[in-house]
Amino acid sequence: MKELNLEQKEYLLNSIRQVHDFPKPGIVFRDITTLLNDKEAFNFLIDHLVARYGEMEIDFIAGIESRGFIFGAALAARLRLPFVPIRKPKKLPYITISQKYSLEYGVDEVQIHIDAFREKQNAKVLLIDDLIATGGTAKASVELINQTNATCIEACFLIDLKELGGSNNLKNLTKIYSVLEL
Amino acid sequence: MKELNLEQKEYLLNSIRQVHDFPKPGIVFRDITTLLNDKEAFNFLIDHLVARYGEMEIDFIAGIESRGFIFGAALAARLRLPFVPIRKPKKLPYITISQKYSLEYGVDEVQIHIDAFREKQNAKVLLIDDLIATGGTAKASVELINQTNATCIEACFLIDLKELGGSNNLKNLTKIYSVLEL
Repeated sequence: MKELNLEQKEYLLNSIRQVHDFPKPGIVFRDITTLLNDKEAFNFLIDHLVARYGEMEIDFIAGIESRGFIFGAALAARLRLPFVPIRKPKKLPYITISQKYSLEYGVDEVQIHIDAFREKQNAKVLLIDDLIATGGTAKASVELINQTNATCIEACFLIDLKELGGSNNLKNLTKIYSVLEL
Repeated sequence: MKELNLEQKEYLLNSIRQVHDFPKPGIVFRDITTLLNDKEAFNFLIDHLVARYGEMEIDFIAGIESRGFIFGAALAARLRLPFVPIRKPKKLPYITISQKYSLEYGVDEVQIHIDAFREKQNAKVLLIDDLIATGGTAKASVELINQTNATCIEACFLIDLKELGGSNNLKNLTKIYSVLEL
């Protein structure tokens, strides 16, 4: 499967701004808005994802709120595939299924509409988010997809913060592709 | 400029689910997830927006959190344009400018990065959201764009709930295009 070479990864990485001490002191936040508002970089990324996923059999693209909506919907539109949002609690209006996951302090939850993939039996789903850290949201999202009679065939992230262990946490559930590993 | 005919509007409208009493009793919520996960309907909408906006001079597409991210990023990817997110407070990591607006009870706020349109002087911006009701968020978003030395050349909504007055509230600030008026 198609992956970027080192020079291409460097190019994309340089389009992502580092913001220190956000959202709290000591954290270096990866600000992907500078990639999105750079016409060349954004299109380079989406073209790469189109090249990778255009050849795979995929029925739906699911994106995780909120930044996963941006990359997921962009790719869905280019591949002419439908899009399914995975959201935080109380955002989806119809009947939902929920999956809880642990945070550093406490518990959070993601939801999907129960009939999200009704248009296709045994749907093959590509999950997209901007970044995987500890992988809690991603793992819960894959579990949600698999609970709806669909199958998450791959989870795709722009950035994998390797040392936080998210991809290890996820790899027994689905294939993983990270454009950039940091 | 291109608009849909009655039959085409009817088709799109039928792909949008009505959920009663969400988020509170008496409200009929327009659930656009059934449009998004319907391959034909989603692509029909995006193709229409591509036909409308492909001929216009646009430098950036801005989308309002969260559903505006989906339609905005989809169109940006298809037109090969960069995307700028307009977000709720405390979400954007870098220096922001803010605009408050009134709700039925209280005040809310939207933010944009101060350098969101730095790649282009006097940028022409298309603003996208899924729905305009009273227009508070949309008006604040147009004001934010215009405060950054860019110009909002049109605000595009999938649904305009006409009787709530949002488009009247907005029309002195920018052109407006609503795919469906209800």
